[in-house]
Amino acid sequence: MEFRNKEIAISAPIPPCQDDEYKEDAWGVENCGDSFQKITINRPKVTGSLVKLKMKYCGICHTDVHFTLNHIGGTMYPIVPGHELVGVVTEVGSDVTRVSIGSLVAVGCTVDCCMQCEMCDAGEDNYCQNGGMTGTYNSTKKHGHMGGNQDTQTLGGYSKSQVVHERFIVILPEGIDLAKAAPLVCAGITMFDPLRHWGAADTDKKMNIGIAGIGGLGTMGIKLAKAMGHNVVAISSSDSKRQLAEEKGASGFVATSDPKSVNEHSNSLDLILNTIPAPHDVMSLVGLLRTNGTLVQLGVVAVPAPVNQFALMMGRKSIAGSLIGGMKALQECVDFCFKHDIYPDIEIVDAGEIERVYLALEKSNSSGIRYVLDIENSA
Amino acid sequence: MEFRNKEIAISAPIPPCQDDEYKEDAWGVENCGDSFQKITINRPKVTGSLVKLKMKYCGICHTDVHFTLNHIGGTMYPIVPGHELVGVVTEVGSDVTRVSIGSLVAVGCTVDCCMQCEMCDAGEDNYCQNGGMTGTYNSTKKHGHMGGNQDTQTLGGYSKSQVVHERFIVILPEGIDLAKAAPLVCAGITMFDPLRHWGAADTDKKMNIGIAGIGGLGTMGIKLAKAMGHNVVAISSSDSKRQLAEEKGASGFVATSDPKSVNEHSNSLDLILNTIPAPHDVMSLVGLLRTNGTLVQLGVVAVPAPVNQFALMMGRKSIAGSLIGGMKALQECVDFCFKHDIYPDIEIVDAGEIERVYLALEKSNSSGIRYVLDIENSA
Repeated sequence: MEFRNKEIAISAPIPPCQDDEYKEDAWGVENCGDSFQKITINRPKVTGSLVKLKMKYCGICHTDVHFTLNHIGGTMYPIVPGHELVGVVTEVGSDVTRVSIGSLVAVGCTVDCCMQCEMCDAGEDNYCQNGGMTGTYNSTKKHGHMGGNQDTQTLGGYSKSQVVHERFIVILPEGIDLAKAAPLVCAGITMFDPLRHWGAADTDKKMNIGIAGIGGLGTMGIKLAKAMGHNVVAISSSDSKRQLAEEKGASGFVATSDPKSVNEHSNSLDLILNTIPAPHDVMSLVGLLRTNGTLVQLGVVAVPAPVNQFALMMGRKSIAGSLIGGMKALQECVDFCFKHDIYPDIEIVDAGEIERVYLALEKSNSSGIRYVLDIENSA
Repeated sequence: MEFRNKEIAISAPIPPCQDDEYKEDAWGVENCGDSFQKITINRPKVTGSLVKLKMKYCGICHTDVHFTLNHIGGTMYPIVPGHELVGVVTEVGSDVTRVSIGSLVAVGCTVDCCMQCEMCDAGEDNYCQNGGMTGTYNSTKKHGHMGGNQDTQTLGGYSKSQVVHERFIVILPEGIDLAKAAPLVCAGITMFDPLRHWGAADTDKKMNIGIAGIGGLGTMGIKLAKAMGHNVVAISSSDSKRQLAEEKGASGFVATSDPKSVNEHSNSLDLILNTIPAPHDVMSLVGLLRTNGTLVQLGVVAVPAPVNQFALMMGRKSIAGSLIGGMKALQECVDFCFKHDIYPDIEIVDAGEIERVYLALEKSNSSGIRYVLDIENSA
């Protein structure tokens, strides 16, 4: 695994277990450059609005790789990644009303927010206006609803249990495949929320929706946009993903390396969800938008993209960004996916395989497969 | 005057006057590199839905300078610029219903469109989907509603008369100052339409609206946004425009060269109309937007701007573009400006002064003044 930016990694050792905490097993990286290993962390004891879940599965997201290997810098070590958690509720605080012991639940990328700003009120806590949401891992506990030691960084789902405020619980529909459900709370919502925000989830109009980048996110996007009743055009650098995209539901395909293919689709798309996670020609995607169209950036690209503003002006086009989704949309997303039988293609792996998976994700994700950790059966 | 790109200028001599045309005086540039001079052009004789106006005033827009001096390349010579026309109707075709002889009217940047696509139907003919709108000058006559020789480029408002289809006529409110009204149909609509499109024209919510670039467009933007009931924050590179901006109605001011000033306003604006017509740091403007905010690019900047998409993602922010406005918004704009007594600060000039004005505009427009040609009194 290729760690980066070691000089700006942050050492944040876990303090001794407090009286209001319990010890738990997790899989994490102790210091920048170390291998994954089983480590002991502390979780808050359940009180008030807190809910404890015994973990069953945790999806492995490409973002886990970026943070664990300090690709952006500023990772707090030890890190326990994982923000696609699925488990069963084993304990609830006295104020909890939404779930009870035995409930099957998920937790996504968010574990706290201010709960009082305009965005939190709207259920869009992912855009909390008071210092931002608290991420499920590698965040500081700034909003005060998390219990336990407030000076510890948040620690994610590669662990035998998790404890969160009930606000951040997604209730899983009865009968859902638990392993497949895990990636819905990150990969799923990342695609669902922009479709919802830009009007695709609730319209009688058949939109032309482009999905750029046909990996794990892209294939979810194709399935979701199709299930919402739209024409879906997959966009990839070459023809090699055409078959995969069509199998998932795309009715059109643009190979951006082929000018003829690009021309055929120019000025045709109402919305493009762009999952490409590496530097690329953003303006060629803008050219595919029709008047009033929006290109939504979803992939973390470190290098700024050159944007020609005249091309935006000529068709009142927009380039926007979107980051996961709020708790309201997250519950809608899981319910929608269950109803329409939409899941990522997954491969279940054991905790001993984490490094193999990370190496595969560092290379590329040409298959579109999401890896899911079987926590319950990992030793 | 500094002409550019001479190797890609287009020579398009005006053909002899046809039977369905009449000869008219105009001020234009015959060949790329020439001085302005009085030239003879042809206008279509009035039939059907055409309306002839005797010109009174024509605003001089910075875009006139770009096209006349071939800054972008592809200018068709001879060129007669001018897309802020005000005059009195002197002849109407038999099918004309909207105006009659004596009506005081304006014509803006658009003189033809397909009249049948979705955007034209919505009155947003500036975004015509069938080959685009026909510009008032330096355009080809592609849509067939213009009369006269169909192979001539369009010729603008620095001329004693103009003839257009009645669809492209703006009816001026009785009592409006005609010279001041001229710039409303370009500078005014350029600012009015994005305010309207992004929800500022018709809301009970007091928005925080940034206006970047405090020249002719910027000062109009301040006045319009204020009259719509919003808080207006002027954005300029240094403090030198603060007084001007406050006089026009800005209640806040950001000097982008001062980090303290930028920090004070970070994440605060719902909408920024960006009129800066030269390369600048677009991302510093994005930083001023709050969650869900939109930066609207209105200035023609030839160099692509580096855009960091993570900054867009973190606050679901957008960078968009807008180009003038459609006929529906144009009439609304003129009526709104008349009602609220909003006009640019203008200086009336004579046709003999065009080159002086162009030299001034090539340098900068620190005063925010719009120049208006007094056509009627130019010899």
